[in-house]
Amino acid sequence: MKPNKKAPIGIFDSGIGGLTVAKAVMETLPDEDIIYFGDTARVPYGIKSVETVREYALQITRFLIERKVKVVLIACNTVSAAAEFEVTEYCRNKGIPVLGVVKAGSIAAEKVSHDKKKVGVIGTLATIGSGTYEKALHELNPDLKIYSKACPLLVPLAEEGWTENDIARQILEFYLSDFKNMKLDSLILGCTHYPLFKKSIREILGNHGLQIVDSAISIAEMTKKLLLEKDLLNDQHPGKLECFVSDKPQRFQQLAEQFLGKRINRVEIVSLT
Amino acid sequence: MKPNKKAPIGIFDSGIGGLTVAKAVMETLPDEDIIYFGDTARVPYGIKSVETVREYALQITRFLIERKVKVVLIACNTVSAAAEFEVTEYCRNKGIPVLGVVKAGSIAAEKVSHDKKKVGVIGTLATIGSGTYEKALHELNPDLKIYSKACPLLVPLAEEGWTENDIARQILEFYLSDFKNMKLDSLILGCTHYPLFKKSIREILGNHGLQIVDSAISIAEMTKKLLLEKDLLNDQHPGKLECFVSDKPQRFQQLAEQFLGKRINRVEIVSLT
Repeated sequence: MKPNKKAPIGIFDSGIGGLTVAKAVMETLPDEDIIYFGDTARVPYGIKSVETVREYALQITRFLIERKVKVVLIACNTVSAAAEFEVTEYCRNKGIPVLGVVKAGSIAAEKVSHDKKKVGVIGTLATIGSGTYEKALHELNPDLKIYSKACPLLVPLAEEGWTENDIARQILEFYLSDFKNMKLDSLILGCTHYPLFKKSIREILGNHGLQIVDSAISIAEMTKKLLLEKDLLNDQHPGKLECFVSDKPQRFQQLAEQFLGKRINRVEIVSLT
Repeated sequence: MKPNKKAPIGIFDSGIGGLTVAKAVMETLPDEDIIYFGDTARVPYGIKSVETVREYALQITRFLIERKVKVVLIACNTVSAAAEFEVTEYCRNKGIPVLGVVKAGSIAAEKVSHDKKKVGVIGTLATIGSGTYEKALHELNPDLKIYSKACPLLVPLAEEGWTENDIARQILEFYLSDFKNMKLDSLILGCTHYPLFKKSIREILGNHGLQIVDSAISIAEMTKKLLLEKDLLNDQHPGKLECFVSDKPQRFQQLAEQFLGKRINRVEIVSLT
């Protein structure tokens, strides 16, 4: 059964970080309604087993499908790495397409890495340790040279609201020092929090032919293309954002407003099993 | 039934941080055997509900009791805040005493806050937000003036191994700026990771009458006193440390050696329910 074009876009993450995806979707597709789910009771996913992450991802997917979404966006690198296949299979039976940040970011990076074929990837310890981006990039183009670096302090820095101050700058200088003379074609921001550091990263690595790949923007553009192809674009009204979390709605709302740079309405708490 | 004096001391934490307590106990009581449990599959506790933290704390306590410990030390501020009463009640029936870091740190701080009665407390968002130290300190002495500050970046900094470099120093300067001219009697390090920053904190706040209260040392001293009173000191052999975790033993071992400044033996994985 074809989804309804007036139905919302479902976006989920282990917590708050996926709001960068929601933000990019709101900018690219301002007329679309969005349902965001952040699993704030069980965050972080990066330290859990693959089986557990898959189970949680399917619980959230079921919740989004009950809410009648027309497409599911996996805004979490860990879920995208561990469970994109399972979520896609589950949704296929319901006729709902699925897009994930890892594939979206990899496709965008591969497109710009035509010359020297050098791609940098930064992410959390879990994402970098899993080798997910290497796998996705090499599937697209086995000739790519991939350089990755885990940056464990960036998520807590972003949640403290420090993304452009001196301290953030010095920490980024440290993490990016290997990339400075490497002449990368592209750098994938392999964590949903990292787009908040884009300005500082650009200042450190310069403008010389490097493209910074923000998976949030990549997935938003892929979503637009997909909805257009499937004739599912909603152009009836300005879209609205509804947020659901599994714990601590006040803390989520506070951080969410910081991420989105605007006030959001009520955040609803739901219990998943 | 009186515990066996040759029995080990049980110490637990939500993860790795409680090893600062294990370290202080090893230094204060070098002949004692220690069993350490870090709940690495379910860390962090600070974002979970009080009921969940209590359930986890009791599961771990049962594990330690099965291992025949003679005393249980709660090395986690979150558990000490949420579940010390429940763990103490549970152990009372088995004749096993329980000590927790919040009470230990508060008793030590109250002792030195005789003059201006000004106590500073630093901790995670969860610990500071819970008001646990305020409550424990005011129960000891209602006249104390308590100033607290959440320092969310310190745990990830410590886990990155950055405790005395320029970046750590600047972050501490920021967090401690309010305390600089406050003439505190004592500053409680209300998170098990924070003793790693003691040298930098001392450099920033100076030596003028301020006592830095390391709850790890306080609880180690209380443990010595308790074992002495109950005639439970083990003086038969140099003590050994056994570590158990609920996930990722290799990562634990690597961080543990950084925390303890020495090699540790095998880390065993156990599943709790």
